[in-house]
Amino acid sequence: MTRDLERILGFLAELDKLKAVLRQTRPSGFERRENSAEHSWHVCMAAWTLAAQAREHIDVTRVIEMLLVHDIPELDCGDHFVYTRGLDVQEAERRAARRIFGMLPEAIGTRCLERWEEFEARQSPEAVFAYAVDRLLPLLHNLENGGHTWREHAVPLEKVLAFNTPIGDALPDVWAEVRQRILSLRDEIWPAK
Amino acid sequence: MTRDLERILGFLAELDKLKAVLRQTRPSGFERRENSAEHSWHVCMAAWTLAAQAREHIDVTRVIEMLLVHDIPELDCGDHFVYTRGLDVQEAERRAARRIFGMLPEAIGTRCLERWEEFEARQSPEAVFAYAVDRLLPLLHNLENGGHTWREHAVPLEKVLAFNTPIGDALPDVWAEVRQRILSLRDEIWPAK
Repeated sequence: MTRDLERILGFLAELDKLKAVLRQTRPSGFERRENSAEHSWHVCMAAWTLAAQAREHIDVTRVIEMLLVHDIPELDCGDHFVYTRGLDVQEAERRAARRIFGMLPEAIGTRCLERWEEFEARQSPEAVFAYAVDRLLPLLHNLENGGHTWREHAVPLEKVLAFNTPIGDALPDVWAEVRQRILSLRDEIWPAK
Repeated sequence: MTRDLERILGFLAELDKLKAVLRQTRPSGFERRENSAEHSWHVCMAAWTLAAQAREHIDVTRVIEMLLVHDIPELDCGDHFVYTRGLDVQEAERRAARRIFGMLPEAIGTRCLERWEEFEARQSPEAVFAYAVDRLLPLLHNLENGGHTWREHAVPLEKVLAFNTPIGDALPDVWAEVRQRILSLRDEIWPAK
């Protein structure tokens, strides 16, 4: 076996662990929480099918590559609730990304790390779009289950709206629609005290 | 909301169900079985990182698109153990593929269906490669857990070797390595009667 192949097989075995990293949201109709591996697949499908709705033309292949790797540092760091994720977590994830993608042969490892860094920086149209889609899916799950995560963590309406507004940077029609859905559930999810 | 957007959001909600479709294999170190959504992500990462090992040059983007959709018909049909999957299952999956991708706007729905059909036909170098990678992952899981699925279903050594030989069509070095690993576990997994 070549050294490259040995490294790739080691990396692929390591990836299994992402199937045990649990997120805050539950898929629609599920009692259990979602894991980051199945989320990563779902968000790639969302990006691919929503690409024609993007505000500007994007390279879908690069978006999908970003989304395939975007949660891999959680192998070391776990999932952090997006509404409270701090700078210390970002730094720990950067170290994790270097360690994990460093398991791969250099050419492909560098490519994965570049995609992860591009996603984190949110500068390119592709990264802005990928981030929007990554925000969208848990929002749809919350709309379908009565704002479960928001209520559990007492996230106020204003914070949900402010935090998800970047969806509109890449997908204005989608944001207009889901914003309206959030507001229509205002009394149910955030009853007046 | 446009009709296209309504269709895409309906499709994305439908996809959640793939997270409840259980496969025969267990990820390394897991008690629970793997679901088809997390597998779909894992196999995309395997294809991307193994592409440089392929026997001939392949378009990785098309491979990843095939692997993102390859199990989606299981939404209607469930997962079928590869060693016993019959022609009736293939026909039911074809009907399911038409129904599910038919939920999408025509352009993207047709693209998804084309990728699924290409994967199933196993004619193009990309499809042969995608199929090889899809066979490889459960084989690696079985090698790591003592041939669990093979023993549970009493799959003989000869059938495991014959069935997985197509891995070598696309990834000869990988097949040489895993074939050797299978043979090295022969006495443990298939003890003489």
